[in-house]
Amino acid sequence: MSATPLQFAEWTLAMQSRVEYVLTKHMPAETEAPHTLHRAMRYAVLGGGKRVRALLAYAAGEFCGASADDVDMPAAAVELIHAFSLVHDDMPCMDDDDLRRGKPSTHKQFGDATALLAGDALQSLAFELISGAHSATQPSQQVSILHCLAVATGSRGMAGGQSIDLESTGIKLTQSQLAQMHALKTGALIQAAAMMGAYSADNLDSDKMTAVDTFSKSIGLAFQVIDDILDTEADTATLGKTAGKDAEQDKSTYVTLLGLDTAKTLAKSLYKQAIAPLEVYGREADRLISLANFITQRQF
Amino acid sequence: MSATPLQFAEWTLAMQSRVEYVLTKHMPAETEAPHTLHRAMRYAVLGGGKRVRALLAYAAGEFCGASADDVDMPAAAVELIHAFSLVHDDMPCMDDDDLRRGKPSTHKQFGDATALLAGDALQSLAFELISGAHSATQPSQQVSILHCLAVATGSRGMAGGQSIDLESTGIKLTQSQLAQMHALKTGALIQAAAMMGAYSADNLDSDKMTAVDTFSKSIGLAFQVIDDILDTEADTATLGKTAGKDAEQDKSTYVTLLGLDTAKTLAKSLYKQAIAPLEVYGREADRLISLANFITQRQF
Repeated sequence: MSATPLQFAEWTLAMQSRVEYVLTKHMPAETEAPHTLHRAMRYAVLGGGKRVRALLAYAAGEFCGASADDVDMPAAAVELIHAFSLVHDDMPCMDDDDLRRGKPSTHKQFGDATALLAGDALQSLAFELISGAHSATQPSQQVSILHCLAVATGSRGMAGGQSIDLESTGIKLTQSQLAQMHALKTGALIQAAAMMGAYSADNLDSDKMTAVDTFSKSIGLAFQVIDDILDTEADTATLGKTAGKDAEQDKSTYVTLLGLDTAKTLAKSLYKQAIAPLEVYGREADRLISLANFITQRQF
Repeated sequence: MSATPLQFAEWTLAMQSRVEYVLTKHMPAETEAPHTLHRAMRYAVLGGGKRVRALLAYAAGEFCGASADDVDMPAAAVELIHAFSLVHDDMPCMDDDDLRRGKPSTHKQFGDATALLAGDALQSLAFELISGAHSATQPSQQVSILHCLAVATGSRGMAGGQSIDLESTGIKLTQSQLAQMHALKTGALIQAAAMMGAYSADNLDSDKMTAVDTFSKSIGLAFQVIDDILDTEADTATLGKTAGKDAEQDKSTYVTLLGLDTAKTLAKSLYKQAIAPLEVYGREADRLISLANFITQRQF
């Protein structure tokens, strides 16, 4: 019932190019002052990453009846928030990571002060794009989208998860504590990406909204389990970031907690939970299901 | 024609208490996890500061016909953004300031990583409040308010000004370059504060909007000139931050550039520019004019 792998691969490439174009166009140019800040912002955002969050926004939007035009600004915004979090996360006072997507991380390239400001300005830009003149949705939708993103970014979302992560270094978490931390640290933004896509649709069907909500919550957690598996398995060269860093920093991961095999089983089970509410929709849900496959099997 | 000093002082105290109440109520409690992050956020925001930006929002709102209820969320939001900028500004990779409002700065109290995250989460919270259920304005107004704040916070506003400030340390700026830097670094947020108040009014009169725009641009610049004067004149004890820091770090200020007397003359001239477009409004503009007095004479 699902789309052919080729169709999905084509869609993925098309949407990745699409959000790259939107970001390239709507980010301040390097030729605009302050040059260093704008160079750092573009360096942190453009030309890298799988754009999983943007893909989720486009796919959930399509499922709920929004056009890709409707979703462009939310998709770009969620990628800006993700990029900002990586810039700040890599800084010496946080994870102190020198490599990101195979390149020097932003603070290694531009210095800590510029990286700090670039992250700050990327967050602002995300909200600027959604509330700006290029948004294709109605004010009430813009407000829902903005609120969803703001909550997912802040202390009850991503920043909160990062804070719990900081506090739990060196402490062995239970599986439930680990799930709670990840639900905030990465899950909240992944869920927001999908929900922002849904909110971009006119006359949003509440059953579909609930299905997207459940789907995105489980797939967000699956995404993190897979990330832990990748972090253990991959070497620095193929991953483009310093591998094994979490284990080295004595952080709890699904792999250190459950072992590799059980972590893989958990990822599969979360995948099944994610797609369960979509199955009644038949072909309409193809894209989201293919995306779930893409996310949970992205190492292959 | 202007309000009596006593009336203005009462209004100022009332509005300062009001925004403090709104912030206290709508910021996550210290008892809510993640505790350290929420403690740091409240530490950075509550119980200090003159709330000049919130006062501007309330006064401009009143001038344009908005009630204080209408302005509560924008007023709180602009104070959150201001607080976040101070947290990040004080960090070792930026100004490396140990004192803020007479207390240890946030990173001294909670560590660099928590300060970084607290600043990030305060920015998100600002946008969350404006777009949230407690906002008293219509969706189209919320979008205008949010967009205004996002632009003023980002690389074409405050963050951009900070970046220019960083790049110009050790370089002697011209008065026009210095004005441009400050127009972004502090002016943009002050202007946004007033404009967000204006946008909170239903059926906003376009002449009044223009008057608020001109007023807030000049008063923002005056505010910075005064800040430079204060930085030179005040000692650490009365100012609550490390005095003479800018001169010590070899940064251009209005005082180093123009001398103390000419800087004072400039502040007065900017004050006059600010209130000129308000004078046709008679008593309606009393509050904004009193606020201009308050801002430009705040050292007395």
